[in-house]
Order: sequence, then C-alpha cells, then structure tokens
Amino acid sequence: MRILLVGATGTLGQSVREVLRERSHEVVTASRKGSDVSVDITDPESIRAMYEQVGKVHAVASAAGSVPWLPFGELRYQDVLDGVAGKVVSQVELVRQGAAYVAGSFTLITGVLAREPLRTGAVASLANGAIEAFVRAAAIELPQRVNAVSPTIFTESVDVYGDLFVGFEPVPVRQAANAYVRSIEGHQTGQVYMVG
Amino acid sequence: MRILLVGATGTLGQSVREVLRERSHEVVTASRKGSDVSVDITDPESIRAMYEQVGKVHAVASAAGSVPWLPFGELRYQDVLDGVAGKVVSQVELVRQGAAYVAGSFTLITGVLAREPLRTGAVASLANGAIEAFVRAAAIELPQRVNAVSPTIFTESVDVYGDLFVGFEPVPVRQAANAYVRSIEGHQTGQVYMVG
Repeated sequence: MRILLVGATGTLGQSVREVLRERSHEVVTASRKGSDVSVDITDPESIRAMYEQVGKVHAVASAAGSVPWLPFGELRYQDVLDGVAGKVVSQVELVRQGAAYVAGSFTLITGVLAREPLRTGAVASLANGAIEAFVRAAAIELPQRVNAVSPTIFTESVDVYGDLFVGFEPVPVRQAANAYVRSIEGHQTGQVYMVG
Repeated sequence: MRILLVGATGTLGQSVREVLRERSHEVVTASRKGSDVSVDITDPESIRAMYEQVGKVHAVASAAGSVPWLPFGELRYQDVLDGVAGKVVSQVELVRQGAAYVAGSFTLITGVLAREPLRTGAVASLANGAIEAFVRAAAIELPQRVNAVSPTIFTESVDVYGDLFVGFEPVPVRQAANAYVRSIEGHQTGQVYMVG
C-alpha cells in the first residue's frame, strides 16, 4: 500500500515507518521538517498543500500531536487552545480533508491519559478523550475505516517520562507500531487499540 | 448551598434549577439571556465577568454547551472549531477560572454520544469524549470535586430529536437533574454519571 505517515520523525513515527517498510509498504513521510513532505498540522492550509502534493494514498497514519503539560493551576486559556489545536483539530482535519484522498483507512494517535489521568496531563486527557470518541463517530459516516492507537509509555521513553508515568508498565514502541499495522491492514473501524 | 447554574434556560437547565430549589439550595442562574447573570461561555472575558459578579459559590453546575450537527461530509473546519469552543473549551474555562471562586464542586455536561455515535454527531462525540476525559484528569489535581453528567435523549426531547436517537430508550430529564444533585451533594470526584 501507499501510506502517508504524518509525524514521522518522533519515537513512535520512526517505529511505525520501520514496521510499515518491513511489510513492503510505500511510506510517504510528513512532519514539520526532515520528511518527504513538510506540514504543520495545526494549519489547515498546510494540510491542504500536503494532500495536494502527496495525492492519492491507501492509508493515512498519524503519529503527530502535541499538547502542553502543566499543573492545572498554571494552565492558561491559551494552553487549552494550543492543546486542542495541536492534537484534536489537527487530526480531525487530517481526516476531514483526507476523505477526498484516502482509499482505505485513517489511524490517529491518542494515549493512555484518556482513561488514566496524571498530574499535569489535563489537556492531554482532554485531547485523547476527544480523538477516541471522534474515531468511533467518524467510523459510522466515512467510507474509509478510522481507528486510533492509544499507547501507554514506551520503554524507549522511560528516561524522559518515567517519573511522570510512575508505576506504569512500559511497552516497546514497536508494539504501538504493530497496532498501526493492525489498523491499516486489518478489517475493523471505529476501534481504539490500547497498547499496554 | 449557593450554586451557580450555567445554562439555566434549556430543557435540562430548567429541570436542574427546579430540583436544586426543591432541595433548598440557592440557585444563581446564568445564560446568554433570561437569567440572573448574562454570560457567553465561549468568551473567557464574559466568564471572568460572570464570576466577578456572582462571587463565591459552593458549586458550579453547567448545563450549557452547543455543537454543530452535520453530516460528516458537510463539516467545515470552522464547524469543528465552533463545537470545540461551544462545549469543550467553554466548560474547561468554567473550571479553570472557577477554581478561585468555588468551594465544593463542578458538574459539567456531556452526553451519550461519547460512547454511542450517531450520524451527524461527530463533533458532539468529540466534545463529549473530551469533557469526560477532562473531568477524570481535573479531579486528581483540583481541591474541588469535578464530575460530568452524560445523559441519553430526554423524554421531553423526543418530539425534536427522536428520529435521530431511534431505538434509544429516553429518560425523563429529571433523572439527569438528579445526577447533578448526586454530583453536587455527593462525595465522588472524577466521575461520569451516565443517565440512561
């Protein structure tokens, strides 16, 4: 398949790219910089330009989305807007605009904070909960399949985030990448694949 | 208790007001018009002015929040922004700013579409999923309790929305109002009270 991978340069994106290429897919990478296509997913015009440049694909896989991590008492109005723009509206826009370009499936990224809150993660929880409910809803209207991958902390990220995810059992990032394969090559829609 | 009820004029808001007054609470009502206080919850400055006018309360109950209902193929970028502003960022802002005014609890409104999607309801699902995950997260950081009420279609709304919620068992709006009582007078936090 020809697959557009958005957010290709992060820990997860690199692993998804590797696993998809091992399975002989053609992977077109997109990210702010360092990929085949440059895109800012918080800008709908940038997403439009990306799809025009890339053209038809079988699948879109998103491993992109950033949210602010702050103690609740330090959250400003703008932080909430930034998190919504960075992980929610951005990924919705990948699906909304992508409907004209994608034959098979969309796979979005959420995360364990949708169900397991952590201090400083209120905006992450909000964003993940939004995306998980969105894929269930989009799946019953779109001809394409739409799923989400919702991983816990990666083994590869314990050095950076381990103190926050204290007591959580880490999973190798490759398990999350395999969930993308399941979404892209599998048969289901409206699913949230929990990893870990 | 002294309770600020935001969104006091709708079907749900009127019932919440009635039930809270029956239980001898002092209810200060707020809405765009027709209430004790005028507020536009999509405008953080308007929320600021509301809290300054109302002052300290024991609880905030939100029955306010609007989202666009459109077939997925007709959703524009602006519709997604409007839904996020109308039901998600608005209610988050009630909590974020309210933290300085509220002694006891916040109760927000979500709805069954977080878990049961319906055609034309993708933005509603997204908004409800966001708020449900948000209350779980805010609850572990705030000194106040934070819960959500997530009702199905009301018996009183079947004439208007019954064709969309086909096969759903309606519940009297008063059952949802009782969930607000449970949230406000009860002991739990981070809960989503499903009604129906």
